[in-house]
Amino acid sequence: MTENCESRFAAYRGAHVLITGGVGLIGSALARRLAALGADVLLVDSMVSEAGGNFANIADFRDRVRLNIADIRDGAALRHLLAGQDFLFDLAGQTSHLDSMNAPEHDLAVNCTAQLQLLELCRAVAPAVKIVHAGTRQIYGRPRYLPVDEAHPLRPADVNGVNKMAGEAYHLLFHDVYGIDTRSLRLTNVYGPGMRIKDARQNFLGIWLRRSLEGEAFEVWGGEQRRELLYVDDAVEAFLRAALSRDTAGLALNVGGDAPYTLLALADALVRASDGSARFEQREFPAERKAIDIGDFVTDDRRFRGLTGWAPRTALDDGLGRSLDYYRRHMASYL
Amino acid sequence: MTENCESRFAAYRGAHVLITGGVGLIGSALARRLAALGADVLLVDSMVSEAGGNFANIADFRDRVRLNIADIRDGAALRHLLAGQDFLFDLAGQTSHLDSMNAPEHDLAVNCTAQLQLLELCRAVAPAVKIVHAGTRQIYGRPRYLPVDEAHPLRPADVNGVNKMAGEAYHLLFHDVYGIDTRSLRLTNVYGPGMRIKDARQNFLGIWLRRSLEGEAFEVWGGEQRRELLYVDDAVEAFLRAALSRDTAGLALNVGGDAPYTLLALADALVRASDGSARFEQREFPAERKAIDIGDFVTDDRRFRGLTGWAPRTALDDGLGRSLDYYRRHMASYL
Repeated sequence: MTENCESRFAAYRGAHVLITGGVGLIGSALARRLAALGADVLLVDSMVSEAGGNFANIADFRDRVRLNIADIRDGAALRHLLAGQDFLFDLAGQTSHLDSMNAPEHDLAVNCTAQLQLLELCRAVAPAVKIVHAGTRQIYGRPRYLPVDEAHPLRPADVNGVNKMAGEAYHLLFHDVYGIDTRSLRLTNVYGPGMRIKDARQNFLGIWLRRSLEGEAFEVWGGEQRRELLYVDDAVEAFLRAALSRDTAGLALNVGGDAPYTLLALADALVRASDGSARFEQREFPAERKAIDIGDFVTDDRRFRGLTGWAPRTALDDGLGRSLDYYRRHMASYL
Repeated sequence: MTENCESRFAAYRGAHVLITGGVGLIGSALARRLAALGADVLLVDSMVSEAGGNFANIADFRDRVRLNIADIRDGAALRHLLAGQDFLFDLAGQTSHLDSMNAPEHDLAVNCTAQLQLLELCRAVAPAVKIVHAGTRQIYGRPRYLPVDEAHPLRPADVNGVNKMAGEAYHLLFHDVYGIDTRSLRLTNVYGPGMRIKDARQNFLGIWLRRSLEGEAFEVWGGEQRRELLYVDDAVEAFLRAALSRDTAGLALNVGGDAPYTLLALADALVRASDGSARFEQREFPAERKAIDIGDFVTDDRRFRGLTGWAPRTALDDGLGRSLDYYRRHMASYL
């Protein structure tokens, strides 16, 4: 970590930081970094089996943070946990598009109802807390133009998208009406060590990694759709900068990757990163997936970059290589 | 009713029609019209005291429709009531902006969660039902440009707006993914005989009418903000046309009034309609209202007019006069 970087984040030294979804992919990487910056970090995670929480994600720094297992729907618990916090990184959520269609009311309870309750609790017990909400580019739905900027209409293509849209809108509203210091980052697909690889619930790359490590071909559905990937450490940097940027308060801001790639190009990159041991097969899109697929997606995140100076720093091949290395060593904890 | 008009709505003769919020302002007027068109009409209403339902609204045609008192959150009841329906006019909701800030989770349960459940039930027991959802211009929030068309960004200014935005988004999603024949009308302020006048929960005009009829001055908060009013019979016509228009399926469409008026101009019109007996006082905006007020609002509803041929036909002075007449005769039932 450079001196420059340390001084940028001096405000986190000794600060009280709550991370919901703190044992998941982004939450755990954020916690590791915040602990290194000297923050007093409290992780909240439901540890439900369908979500991203995995104790292996925090094993290397478990003694430097506090952990409270609780569902974010548990308002009584959250009231206690929120009191006295300086920062709230609001990462808990249901992420699976397909699960959201099969169990829409569960998705609503977690991604929408619980967000409203959390903000009401912040008003009550932590009105000065600085919040960053993990939003998603999913709320735009199928793009009408590319690249997609923040003015693009919102037409979610699945129940998860509707609920994430509403969850984000509460944040912006509580900023506008009550002066809560909150913003939302509309993230593209985040990947890296700590992601769920058991299945595709977090994103498609999880299952690709798993199959590659097990010596099996992974499936590429379609192939020509363009997608972006953001390495988890770059996502962490975006969250850390956003929470300290007054200019981002009340805004919903896109956070994309370094560049868009076709799924085929991503598959080729994974084969390269595995030194050729990974292989894949192209497949037709399954019907239930096709109904909620959004085609090409390319993010315009110039506004966020301009306001915070953030830019992704991890090249795709490097990020994929680090991910493969990690799972080669820790595979058993993620199956 | 003209012959032309009857033939336009021939599809309603003998059709099974469910109206949620059926004892409220729009619901009851729609029911009266549908009963006259020969439809088999079932009204569902929670009859909770804060909402718009009032038995006086249906007294003149009570024997020509069926009524089932139930909350739209009651999924078991709705499952039975939805089965076999050809049309669903989805008007039930919490409408008070201020209540939505004071009891946000109740607003969410009614305007968001219940909508998702209703659509899931439609998929299960009435997949071919034609739906019109009562949306609201409130979801746009404070306008960034005027007039506001459907491409205007959504930035709800209160909790009610967030939940109505999500409730509408479910409808569009269920069209896109499951082929449900549904659309949403983003309505401006609707007024007329049958509206709630006990307080301002439906819109500001209710309390203006009440004070005028009681011989007291009504209060105009601010005065220069431009607003639109849509007479209830014109709103009914919009719903009837929308449900029969295939071209509107999957769309959210603005429905405005005949013209925008400043609140002062509306107040003057009410004084005129009362033959000078009404009077008003201008007041500063109360603080808790100002935080969620949206300034001027002017609707661009050319898309809906173009698709359906609809236009409002009731002039403001006429609509206000009819409203005053109605409440002079039925005042006791509305206090």
